[in-house]
Amino acid sequence: MGSMAWKQLLLNALESNTHLKHSSYMQLATVGTNGKPSNRTVVFRGFQDNTDNIQINTDTRTRKIEELKLCSSAEICWYFTDSWEQFRINGHVDIIDGTNPDLLKLKQREKSWFASSTRSRSQYLWPNPGLPCLNEQTQPEMSLDPSIGPVDAFCLLILEPDQVDYLNLKSNQRLTFRSSLSDASKKCWIMERVNL
Amino acid sequence: MGSMAWKQLLLNALESNTHLKHSSYMQLATVGTNGKPSNRTVVFRGFQDNTDNIQINTDTRTRKIEELKLCSSAEICWYFTDSWEQFRINGHVDIIDGTNPDLLKLKQREKSWFASSTRSRSQYLWPNPGLPCLNEQTQPEMSLDPSIGPVDAFCLLILEPDQVDYLNLKSNQRLTFRSSLSDASKKCWIMERVNL
Repeated sequence: MGSMAWKQLLLNALESNTHLKHSSYMQLATVGTNGKPSNRTVVFRGFQDNTDNIQINTDTRTRKIEELKLCSSAEICWYFTDSWEQFRINGHVDIIDGTNPDLLKLKQREKSWFASSTRSRSQYLWPNPGLPCLNEQTQPEMSLDPSIGPVDAFCLLILEPDQVDYLNLKSNQRLTFRSSLSDASKKCWIMERVNL
Repeated sequence: MGSMAWKQLLLNALESNTHLKHSSYMQLATVGTNGKPSNRTVVFRGFQDNTDNIQINTDTRTRKIEELKLCSSAEICWYFTDSWEQFRINGHVDIIDGTNPDLLKLKQREKSWFASSTRSRSQYLWPNPGLPCLNEQTQPEMSLDPSIGPVDAFCLLILEPDQVDYLNLKSNQRLTFRSSLSDASKKCWIMERVNL
């Protein structure tokens, strides 16, 4: 297998598990502000353009933002329940909120906003996630103008992988992929077969 | 809901997802020896006796053991694909390998060994996990005497929870549970409803 082989393995896994709604759910681990690990389910929002960077949408008011600002390293654990494949994807995360000075990045954030459903978008108008719930009623149905651009709480995360561990429990195969920079500063991947 | 309510919620979730093999799979996040987060799928091996402590079997030669020795904190993220429930269980982990001086703990390790299938047990005789695979052949079929006790590489992990975050995506409900010690040094749980 050549360079970027893990991305192809991942695309294959997505393809063979596509009938399962939860196949786009993955677990994102970060280091908490207290130094303890933190772990939650997030949704895969595709690769960024032609790269191997992974896109995740989130709310700027969630704890992970605070955590990623202190330590940008993260590891995704993604288990495919039908094909029995696990991807552990380690890398660092770029936080793109509405205050980002890079116009290209703001454009990506806007693109990701419009790519998500209006139902998903309206969640960013809900009360502060994780804070005590002040009333007993359920979340109100918010209507959001579909033409309106990303609201303040909407944030795009881009995880740039530098190490991937692939495990296949059907074929009993495990591979690790490590990125390195070539002489021409081009990112390349080195693959190794390792014991289960 | 009274004390220990999260355990009952978890038992209910296990019950309603029991037809799915992967319902006992959960993601365990630790802090790597390099300070970066580390995340992998592990199997739930039940609660320890009458406590709310979570049991996990692992190989002493895996990286998580090294990591947990440096930082015993861990967070489990457990998503139930059928009932749309997520449990984030934070706590610290006790490592029980064959060198443990506590006879009661060694007994628990032995119990966990015999509770797992002979097929699972034979994996602990395989070559060092994560190290480069030296030959092209697949893992040999090892036969292990079913009456033999735990081998050196077998390790029982006990995660003692001190915080649990529960999310139900069907009822749109989120609860946090925090443990505290009462005057009589008895562990008790405080529940709070929080925003999604």
